[in-house]
Amino acid sequence: MTLILKQEELKNCVSISVEGIKVIEDAFKNLSEGNAIMPPIMRLDIEENNGEVDVKTAYIKGLDSFAIKMSPGFFDNPKIGLPSTGGLMVLLSSQTGTLEAVLLDKGYLTDIRTALAGAISVKYLAKKEISSVGIIGAGAQAKLQLEALMLVRKPSELRIWSRDSNKTKNYITEVNKKFDIKILMTKNPQEVTENSEVVITTTPSTTPLIKSEWLHPGLHITAMGSDAEHKNEIDPQIIKKADMYVCDSQSQTAILGELNHAIKTGLIDKNVKFTEIGDIVSGSKKGRKNDQEITICDLTGTGIQDTAIARLALKKAKNKNLGISI
Amino acid sequence: MTLILKQEELKNCVSISVEGIKVIEDAFKNLSEGNAIMPPIMRLDIEENNGEVDVKTAYIKGLDSFAIKMSPGFFDNPKIGLPSTGGLMVLLSSQTGTLEAVLLDKGYLTDIRTALAGAISVKYLAKKEISSVGIIGAGAQAKLQLEALMLVRKPSELRIWSRDSNKTKNYITEVNKKFDIKILMTKNPQEVTENSEVVITTTPSTTPLIKSEWLHPGLHITAMGSDAEHKNEIDPQIIKKADMYVCDSQSQTAILGELNHAIKTGLIDKNVKFTEIGDIVSGSKKGRKNDQEITICDLTGTGIQDTAIARLALKKAKNKNLGISI
Repeated sequence: MTLILKQEELKNCVSISVEGIKVIEDAFKNLSEGNAIMPPIMRLDIEENNGEVDVKTAYIKGLDSFAIKMSPGFFDNPKIGLPSTGGLMVLLSSQTGTLEAVLLDKGYLTDIRTALAGAISVKYLAKKEISSVGIIGAGAQAKLQLEALMLVRKPSELRIWSRDSNKTKNYITEVNKKFDIKILMTKNPQEVTENSEVVITTTPSTTPLIKSEWLHPGLHITAMGSDAEHKNEIDPQIIKKADMYVCDSQSQTAILGELNHAIKTGLIDKNVKFTEIGDIVSGSKKGRKNDQEITICDLTGTGIQDTAIARLALKKAKNKNLGISI
Repeated sequence: MTLILKQEELKNCVSISVEGIKVIEDAFKNLSEGNAIMPPIMRLDIEENNGEVDVKTAYIKGLDSFAIKMSPGFFDNPKIGLPSTGGLMVLLSSQTGTLEAVLLDKGYLTDIRTALAGAISVKYLAKKEISSVGIIGAGAQAKLQLEALMLVRKPSELRIWSRDSNKTKNYITEVNKKFDIKILMTKNPQEVTENSEVVITTTPSTTPLIKSEWLHPGLHITAMGSDAEHKNEIDPQIIKKADMYVCDSQSQTAILGELNHAIKTGLIDKNVKFTEIGDIVSGSKKGRKNDQEITICDLTGTGIQDTAIARLALKKAKNKNLGISI
């Protein structure tokens, strides 16, 4: 029997939570310890419709199931009132390949596991105490990344900037309802970066939004927008200048992430081995060492996170007797 | 709304048929004419459980949907009474990425589109009139390939060989019920090859079953078993000796098919461009030129076939009002 779960049911099961952080931390730890098999991302581009689909998967050794995730992104959808992203995940038995569940999440689980990875990067790489956080972008991840960060740090001030001032205003309204934090609209990414101890970039930008001149001691940047060759949120010089560059999966960030641009421009040798976030979670490498370091975390989104969040969702759904069995 | 379709419903919609051949022919034609985007296959191996999963996809330009197919193969499953293969397909809108349908086919549609490709290879590459056909292997494809072949040729004699004589006997019983054809059990693949005008290999063999010494004028071989680096059904010399080597997709067969072994052993230069079956369907290249030629068709199974068969299945299911809308 295969369990079919709808988005509303999955929202009932999984959200931004400390439990979720733990699950994604374990996934990263398994990846860094070599306990996972994660093939390269499959990508299909449908250029004439400004669309793409990414397929990700990963198997964590010893676990009884693994996910395959299909993420379409069709960037003209908002013009006709549809969200740009969507898709689904499936869970297969790792013993028999049997289809255990179809998770019709429309991208919800991806949103959650992406934000949880952001919280993990802040947990291990930002200063222990911060008062100011900056967000670049005002979309779904701009909200979820803040929500996830609030589980690991308690800033009193938020600076927000996005290209679209209407979206920025809506963002502020929503955040005001949800969190007790002072929100400051800003004129540009420079103002955000120079005045924040943690900056999270959440855009699909193809040209750098953050310049290396704006770096300051103690700053941590989580760059989570770039997940394709052409996307680029931060000046590649930042990777060279920072005291510590950390990524979710170097085999991915070297092709799809911010690291890709630093390699392409010759600033970074492609053979340099960087720390992955799972190395820090597992304790085999250190995160931030003092309050002066400048750190950066480059997140492209991994199949290992998809398997972890899909397994959590299915466990919860079974406990709640949700879904249709087919 | 997403339509969920079960295997039984899909069996009700799609089968080995002349209509199916036409649909797969069109798909190959689009691929060869450059009207398709087909990324490399994604593959995840779970070695400790003797399992693997392949993900295939392809978009045919101008069509309003495309499939993603997930094919697990867990080869210890028969020990616990489960089939080795299974999986599902999904159909997404190529305009918006919206999930249109989940086809819970458990590998059925893959079986059908694979057999239909076999029929197409025989249609264009075997002699116009044949009296004898040989099948190597006695599994699901051994049956379906024969059924599909019977739509394009009318042999009066069938020679069958497989490693497992019980499976061979069951095969014969089933074929006897279905077709008016004289069936001859054989001692070995040599006897099959030397006495058949068309030979279809349908095994997961990792060492060649057919030797080049057994080739004879007029022979056509369809080798459809190899879809992974280590699989190999025919002596690589056969590719060199044959008058014509044709494949479904050279970018795949050079890595996963029989061609892979001919390249690896240095018999064939990897830069030689061969005819693909779609080139023949479209008329841009010729198939068999006379009754003396020895021809071979190397089939690895393509995402383009998956998209074609999934679209056909959904169209039929909608006409019949099948499935559950979620």
